[in-house]
Amino acid sequence: MRAWIIVTGDEILNGKTLDYNSYWVAKRLTSMGIEVKRRITVPDDKKAIKQSIQAGIPTADLIILIGGLGPTPRDETLIAIAEALEKELVLNDTAVRLVKDSYKRFYQQGFVDSPKLNDARRKMAQLPEGSKPLENAVGGAPGVFIRHKNTQIFSLPGVPSELMYTLEQAIPILFEAVKGEEIVRTREVFIEAQDESAIAGALEKVMQEVKDTTIKSYPTGFGKKMRIIAVAHAQNSTQAEEKLEKAISLLRKQVFS
Amino acid sequence: MRAWIIVTGDEILNGKTLDYNSYWVAKRLTSMGIEVKRRITVPDDKKAIKQSIQAGIPTADLIILIGGLGPTPRDETLIAIAEALEKELVLNDTAVRLVKDSYKRFYQQGFVDSPKLNDARRKMAQLPEGSKPLENAVGGAPGVFIRHKNTQIFSLPGVPSELMYTLEQAIPILFEAVKGEEIVRTREVFIEAQDESAIAGALEKVMQEVKDTTIKSYPTGFGKKMRIIAVAHAQNSTQAEEKLEKAISLLRKQVFS
Repeated sequence: MRAWIIVTGDEILNGKTLDYNSYWVAKRLTSMGIEVKRRITVPDDKKAIKQSIQAGIPTADLIILIGGLGPTPRDETLIAIAEALEKELVLNDTAVRLVKDSYKRFYQQGFVDSPKLNDARRKMAQLPEGSKPLENAVGGAPGVFIRHKNTQIFSLPGVPSELMYTLEQAIPILFEAVKGEEIVRTREVFIEAQDESAIAGALEKVMQEVKDTTIKSYPTGFGKKMRIIAVAHAQNSTQAEEKLEKAISLLRKQVFS
Repeated sequence: MRAWIIVTGDEILNGKTLDYNSYWVAKRLTSMGIEVKRRITVPDDKKAIKQSIQAGIPTADLIILIGGLGPTPRDETLIAIAEALEKELVLNDTAVRLVKDSYKRFYQQGFVDSPKLNDARRKMAQLPEGSKPLENAVGGAPGVFIRHKNTQIFSLPGVPSELMYTLEQAIPILFEAVKGEEIVRTREVFIEAQDESAIAGALEKVMQEVKDTTIKSYPTGFGKKMRIIAVAHAQNSTQAEEKLEKAISLLRKQVFS
C-alpha cells in the first residue's frame, strides 16, 4: 500500500514551524506496513493543494492531508479536495453535531464567548460529498475520510494533538485496507564500519541476494559506526522479517569476512 | 524569488529520521527574503528525483536538493539532475581534488583504510556538465551548483553538518540573486485571542487593507494566546517591514476594539 502525505502550511515552508507531524504520521504508517512514497508541503493555497492531490491519486492508495481544516477562509483543504474530486461541499449532519459539541465544551471550559455556530464554525462541517467525519475531541475541526476510486483520502487537522487524535480513527480503517496487501517492514542496525565507500559493494551484493529488499548506509561520522536501514517488501510480516534477518546477517558477513 | 526544496531519503519517508534539514534550509532561505513554495520528499530513486526537478524548473527560481550525493550506487541525485537537465555526467577536476583532499584528511585522522580514490569515491566527483563543486570540509561529497535557464540548482549533502557547511557557500550566490528581486519578510507575534473563528474576520480585513501581505492564525490551545504569522511581499526589506508593522497593529485594533 503506497501513501502520500500532503502537508499544507506556510508556517512550515517559511521555517517558522518544524514539521514533526508528518514525521510522526510516516512512522505510524510504516509500522503498519504502508510504504510512504511522497511527502509534499504546499502553501495554504487551494490550487497548490488541489494539484498535489491530483498528482497523488493515480499512484497513491492512500493520501493523508495534514492541516487547513480550521475556521478561517485561508483554511482551504476541504475546498481543494472537493475540487480535485469534482464533488460539492455539503453541510454534513454528523460534522455539524461534532462541531457543535466541541464549541459547547469550549464554552463550558470558558475558552470561547459563545457556544453557538457562526459561519466560521459552520465552515468546518462543510465536507466534500460522500465524506465521513472523524471526531476531534481536542479541537474544533473534525477530520475527514473519503474514498475516491482506489484511493483512500484522510484530511486531518494540523494542530499536533488534533492530528494524533483524529489519526487514531484512521488506524482501524487502514488495518482493514492493508489486509492481504504487500507490506513493508524496516530494520535499523549499527555496524562497525569505516566509510560508505568501503561498504557500497557489500550493500549491492546483499540486495542481489535478498529479493525485494533494499539496504542503505547512513554515515554517522567517519571511523566508528555506520547506521544501516533495511527495508523489505513481502506478502506478510513473517516473510518480511525473514528477509530483513537474512539481509542484515549477509551484510555482517560481507563486511567482516 | 521562489524556491523548491527537494529532499531525497527513504529514511525520512519511512519515519526513521526527523527531517530537520529542510526546516533549517527553509529558515535560512526565508531570512534572505526567498519564498519557499514547495518541500518535497522523494524516495532514493532516480526517477522520482528527476520528476521533482522537472516539476520545479518551470516555476522555481531556485531548487535546493538535499541528499543522495554519497559514494553508494543508491545515491542517485547527480544522475537525476543530469537526466532532468539533459546533460552528461563528467569527471570534474575541482571535484576530484576536493574528494581527494577529503579522503587524505580522513586517512590522516585514521577514519579510512586508504586515502586513494576508488570507483565509489570517484563517483562523487562526476557532476552534471557545467556544474560548480562546493567544498565540503566535513564529509566526502562536494556540493554542486548548476544553472539551468532561469533556475539555480544546488545539490547538497544530506548529513546535517555537511549540508550546513555547503549551504554557506550557496549563501553569497543567493544574496547576489535576490538583489533587486521582490522579497518576503515574516513576523510572528502572539496576541490575546480566544479562538480562530472569532478573529477570522479581522484577519481578512487586515489582508484587504495591507496589500501583498498574508496574516494567519495558529491556535496554541483555546482560551489564551493565538499565534499570528504575517508574511509581506515587497521590493525591499524596509517596505516589507512597514507592511508587517501595519498589518500587526491593524489586527490588534480589530481584535481589541
